[in-house]
Amino acid sequence: MIHMKKNTNTTSIIALITDFGDKDFYVGAMRGVILSINPNAKIVDISHNIEPFSVISGAYVLYGAYKYFPKGTTFLIVVDPGVGSRREAIVIKTRNYSFVAPNNGVLSLVLMEESITEKYLIPENIFVKKPSYTFHGRDIFAPAAAYASMGVYDVFEEFRGDIVTLDILKYKKEGRAIKAHVINVDRFGNVALSVQYEDVKKEISYGKTVSIKGIGDVKLIRYFSELSVGETGLIVNSIGFLEICVREGNAAKRYGLKLGDEVLLTW
Amino acid sequence: MIHMKKNTNTTSIIALITDFGDKDFYVGAMRGVILSINPNAKIVDISHNIEPFSVISGAYVLYGAYKYFPKGTTFLIVVDPGVGSRREAIVIKTRNYSFVAPNNGVLSLVLMEESITEKYLIPENIFVKKPSYTFHGRDIFAPAAAYASMGVYDVFEEFRGDIVTLDILKYKKEGRAIKAHVINVDRFGNVALSVQYEDVKKEISYGKTVSIKGIGDVKLIRYFSELSVGETGLIVNSIGFLEICVREGNAAKRYGLKLGDEVLLTW
Amino acid sequence: MIHMKKNTNTTSIIALITDFGDKDFYVGAMRGVILSINPNAKIVDISHNIEPFSVISGAYVLYGAYKYFPKGTTFLIVVDPGVGSRREAIVIKTRNYSFVAPNNGVLSLVLMEESITEKYLIPENIFVKKPSYTFHGRDIFAPAAAYASMGVYDVFEEFRGDIVTLDILKYKKEGRAIKAHVINVDRFGNVALSVQYEDVKKEISYGKTVSIKGIGDVKLIRYFSELSVGETGLIVNSIGFLEICVREGNAAKRYGLKLGDEVLLTW
Repeated sequence: MIHMKKNTNTTSIIALITDFGDKDFYVGAMRGVILSINPNAKIVDISHNIEPFSVISGAYVLYGAYKYFPKGTTFLIVVDPGVGSRREAIVIKTRNYSFVAPNNGVLSLVLMEESITEKYLIPENIFVKKPSYTFHGRDIFAPAAAYASMGVYDVFEEFRGDIVTLDILKYKKEGRAIKAHVINVDRFGNVALSVQYEDVKKEISYGKTVSIKGIGDVKLIRYFSELSVGETGLIVNSIGFLEICVREGNAAKRYGLKLGDEVLLTW
Repeated sequence: MIHMKKNTNTTSIIALITDFGDKDFYVGAMRGVILSINPNAKIVDISHNIEPFSVISGAYVLYGAYKYFPKGTTFLIVVDPGVGSRREAIVIKTRNYSFVAPNNGVLSLVLMEESITEKYLIPENIFVKKPSYTFHGRDIFAPAAAYASMGVYDVFEEFRGDIVTLDILKYKKEGRAIKAHVINVDRFGNVALSVQYEDVKKEISYGKTVSIKGIGDVKLIRYFSELSVGETGLIVNSIGFLEICVREGNAAKRYGLKLGDEVLLTW
Repeated sequence: MIHMKKNTNTTSIIALITDFGDKDFYVGAMRGVILSINPNAKIVDISHNIEPFSVISGAYVLYGAYKYFPKGTTFLIVVDPGVGSRREAIVIKTRNYSFVAPNNGVLSLVLMEESITEKYLIPENIFVKKPSYTFHGRDIFAPAAAYASMGVYDVFEEFRGDIVTLDILKYKKEGRAIKAHVINVDRFGNVALSVQYEDVKKEISYGKTVSIKGIGDVKLIRYFSELSVGETGLIVNSIGFLEICVREGNAAKRYGLKLGDEVLLTW
């Protein structure tokens, strides 16, 4: 029997991020498990179409959405190339939110802004005696998120290990040149780079021309409408990253850019 | 402080249409904003996979779904190629529904059936002092829909301008010939034309043979099952438009048809 | 007027499976209809991206998700290549769940585990006097699911016919060889076969080498992490089926396998 130690500051909202896609039974089964444990859960999707196995994409999409949710939201993130290996399944509490995820770095960007107040290990048998070998989203993470959303934390164990963080925002700056990499390609083909505008705004002001290797000279713009249709630009995206864009076009396709590619900027 | 002038006839349902796709953080951030303002909002998706930047597709999908929702539903439509330009962000009330959208024609088809009773302008700073330059879905439209769903309208300003409407259903009829265009290609490859059957039913009755340029002679049918598997036909779709279809096949791929293409029918 | 005979054991959860995709108005219109009839319905998506017209895929995805939902859930399954033909629209009750679907075999796998306690026919005019010829999802199935989720069953008629079942899990075993077929390809390219591990576990134990025609020798594994990245294996998937996989890769693409293809295993 579960002793119900109510943890404060929880709502019933569970926000989901996975790379399970939307054609299979995976996310449906997770939703069923959540509602079986917490019938009042309010399940809200962020994305299920994270690039398969890409922890960096998962971290980026979580970072772009989490702060807009009400305090007390539980985030359930399953991008888990290491399922079945020894990576831990964890629950992190910060002052505002709870995060349920594999301990593989997918929380790296969020943890630049949120401080950990509590950390837990999810026991393998939290929901079924013998969890499946391949689908911990259903058997371990979804049940954990359901309990977290009810403020029931004593189903978890204390976690004394380290939270894995990845150096996602690394780039090399030398004089008036930056070597960065692609951390996201969105639906429109906009290409986000591993550089936050905040870090370079003293040197690159709006209207300045920047040269991108393999692309040519583009302007740093505020609005897409500063470009003519089909023109390429460099924009500060809605969460503060430098992003290569083509107005009403697809920059990633035009320039053959994809996740992880190196991009060289000079000015 | 917001003075809560309750506007009648609202439910907590907010139905969403965007071209933001389902892989990024965009729709998730909008859902978070909505729930932060109206924790009781019932968010219901219509589609987030509108053809990027296609106001016509957005108008068509909205038209195909809206009338099946309960009275009092708030529709939030963000297909917004002009984000950052001077197009207004508006809220339209009709006797049955509220519509939150850019003033770019995306309400054109709905407004053939619904009469405007009130119209409002959404102030840029409705949610944050300085909205982002590129993501008004999160910073302007989602907050507006959240307030509208609570019946809180005095956060808006009066709108005295004109509602933009597009002539989406235009076609040219001369004798027994119609020159129309493609207004939608659905998941199955069915190709909807800019002609409502109501307008031509006196001349084209069920069973009649119609010649489609580049395709050949097809029959106007009621049921897909009137065709053999793989056969092409002309059908009246479930919202009254003429539609080129292939039974259990993909008409758009077979005939290379896409949004905006011209189609010539003779009989 | 509807006489409200409350049927017991229902929650307000309606879980959806369709092949309508996520770009059109189809699923949105169905959600609107459901909420118009049952404003308290809790609509939960399983998948709308079932392979178009594939009753087998629909049956498989339903089977993979249904048992994780709370008792009393109503499942609404619309994979309906025969829309407009004489196939019946039915409601099946089992001890735990209700299923609303066309009578075309899409319930075949579920009915291996669940016993029918009641069966009903949905009248064509349950919602509108003249339902559309092509969209029974909106006009017949969605209204039926809404009523079922409220426990209102006297809008249905008695069904005395047979429930269609398909022999989805057929395979031929001769000595140490099995001729099976592909019943699902998931987002990651994992290829599920028409064989449950339970049936062959006495002969194929974990670690054993199995030869797959056209692929070569692979090992039966428990965890993806037993493979090196890019290596091919045979795994027992999370709902008990044999599945061909490539670690962090796409087996279906690598070997050109698709739904319905024959696969020969020997050991």
